[in-house]
Amino acid sequence: MSVAIVGAGPGDPGLITVRALELVRAAQVLVYDRLVSAALVDEARGAVRVARDELTQDEVNELLVRHGRRGRRVVRLKGGDPFVFGRGGEEVAALAAAGVRCEVVPGVSTLTAIPGLAGIPLTSRGEAAQLTVVSGTSAGGGELDYAHLAATPGTLVVFMGLGRVAAIADGLVRAGRDPAEPAAVLSRLSWPDAEVRTGTLATLAEAARGLESPAVVIVGHVVAHAVRVARVA
Amino acid sequence: MSVAIVGAGPGDPGLITVRALELVRAAQVLVYDRLVSAALVDEARGAVRVARDELTQDEVNELLVRHGRRGRRVVRLKGGDPFVFGRGGEEVAALAAAGVRCEVVPGVSTLTAIPGLAGIPLTSRGEAAQLTVVSGTSAGGGELDYAHLAATPGTLVVFMGLGRVAAIADGLVRAGRDPAEPAAVLSRLSWPDAEVRTGTLATLAEAARGLESPAVVIVGHVVAHAVRVARVA
Repeated sequence: MSVAIVGAGPGDPGLITVRALELVRAAQVLVYDRLVSAALVDEARGAVRVARDELTQDEVNELLVRHGRRGRRVVRLKGGDPFVFGRGGEEVAALAAAGVRCEVVPGVSTLTAIPGLAGIPLTSRGEAAQLTVVSGTSAGGGELDYAHLAATPGTLVVFMGLGRVAAIADGLVRAGRDPAEPAAVLSRLSWPDAEVRTGTLATLAEAARGLESPAVVIVGHVVAHAVRVARVA
Repeated sequence: MSVAIVGAGPGDPGLITVRALELVRAAQVLVYDRLVSAALVDEARGAVRVARDELTQDEVNELLVRHGRRGRRVVRLKGGDPFVFGRGGEEVAALAAAGVRCEVVPGVSTLTAIPGLAGIPLTSRGEAAQLTVVSGTSAGGGELDYAHLAATPGTLVVFMGLGRVAAIADGLVRAGRDPAEPAAVLSRLSWPDAEVRTGTLATLAEAARGLESPAVVIVGHVVAHAVRVARVA
């Protein structure tokens, strides 16, 4: 009788965890993100199902607290990466402030799925010992710190950067990064229509043309090591 | 009839994915890491089970290729983070080189599990927009680049750093990081004996005393925002 904040994984319904699926099946109230697979939403057969994108964040928090207080089995099913650049923490804090017990079930993040599903290692011995992760849409709507990022060794992953691929590649090159450095855009990783496009900082904006969200941008020499692997069935 | 490289999650057997569990149950040959829960190894009832730590990496690669070529259902079940700082990529490359079909099933990484299970957000609006991940045991056995890391904004996560907590904290402070900056060591996240110890860079080595592997070190102001949340059941 508590609220569960549950990661659904990057998209493929087989990538939800066993514990998360158990909670979804037993839910009385399910609040789900737009990016969650319909097959997973359908698993909550006995639940009142609420689409998150018809609500503001305050309304989501209020809904979770209200049903949680009434002792209902509430599941907040989150797509993508609920905690790294998502707002899972705000929901946990709202529940804690209201004294409602909360269970968190972490999911497979798009970040972890990159090496396996796109064949691009994030780190590589002797070449990329450091991994840097930023959001393409900064909190204040401002620019990324390109001067610092350009000087950072290793692999750079930009979440939610699809709409600004040209600005990001340009910003890094202006700050001193080699325009010939390998880069990739990964669109809808683990979905049936997933696409991996590779190029260099100079060609990335052109390569990314027509891709759909969610997408991540990867910059670094590890992109050149891509090994073609089978997608999850 | 292929080899599956499968992430088992950080420890709690409920945090394996639905697809991964399906593959484990159908396996004819299971090669598993020391850190994989015994409950998951037991799920491979019909399989020949091989403990990975009795083999060298070359022997593991050779075993996967040999059984894969014979058309057996082979599952390589990896604990922790197989691809971020693991050697999953080497196994995928060995199979690709031998022409054996390979499926990769990403798992829940310890990194993603941190916010949910230890209550520490990795990023936070207006305070930590960037996440940096490094390995405490560098490839060449050398030191981390403390001068660069100390000047890096946002949150720093060090994998496999437990044995060198004192050196890491000391290196960061010598390079200019504030000794009063919040820091934490998370030991055996998602296991029944998980422990979260918080402090500052100045007190971290003392706080980490007696903790067991696997563990990650987190440095940054987000540590101070820790919200106590329930563990996964």
